[in-house]
Amino acid sequence: MVQYLSGLDLSFAALADPTRRGVLERLGRADASISALAETFHMSVTGMKKHVSALERAGLVTTEKLGRVRTCRLGPRALEAEAAWIESRRRLWRARFERLDKVVEDLSAKEESHEPE
Amino acid sequence: MVQYLSGLDLSFAALADPTRRGVLERLGRADASISALAETFHMSVTGMKKHVSALERAGLVTTEKLGRVRTCRLGPRALEAEAAWIESRRRLWRARFERLDKVVEDLSAKEESHEPE
Repeated sequence: MVQYLSGLDLSFAALADPTRRGVLERLGRADASISALAETFHMSVTGMKKHVSALERAGLVTTEKLGRVRTCRLGPRALEAEAAWIESRRRLWRARFERLDKVVEDLSAKEESHEPE
Repeated sequence: MVQYLSGLDLSFAALADPTRRGVLERLGRADASISALAETFHMSVTGMKKHVSALERAGLVTTEKLGRVRTCRLGPRALEAEAAWIESRRRLWRARFERLDKVVEDLSAKEESHEPE
């Protein structure tokens, strides 16, 4: 079977980890070096590098090395595609639930009009 | 290291697969049996059962067995927690980018007012 990894595959997989979600929250406040992130999350620099790489592959974070320090910042897409996918699903589902509500309403109205007086 | 699986861990991991996202889209239109889903996605019933279980564990889908047929429908939460997490991140990030824009604006205004006439 062909394993096609779309952007959403990578980004939802990246979001499926509490440390990686925490890193995104942290970078939402200010850019940070890998070692600062490792300290914040009580983790080795090597461990944090792996998490940052997963976020980078998904396009959620970009990094830049200046001298010996690698600084991480939010990627330019900032969860746009993920928000769009979730929102379009929710819109369709709401529409479906509303149609179901309408069917139930119509049925009860019909039942009421057929009730013996 | 303790591996604590939060609801978001499970649901983002469930969303990180194109077949599982496809199943959610399909169930958004109408409920379906596991075997109907397997046919739609050109997959064995056993393979589809695994995908549906992952969605069920994440609370995104519920299933009900009537006789020999297991029917799948959207779970009641319908991506609410995931949408809320993504939206709150995006709100914070927008606020941060707007603050940065303001700083840049103020700096350029200051520079202009100091330019020799």
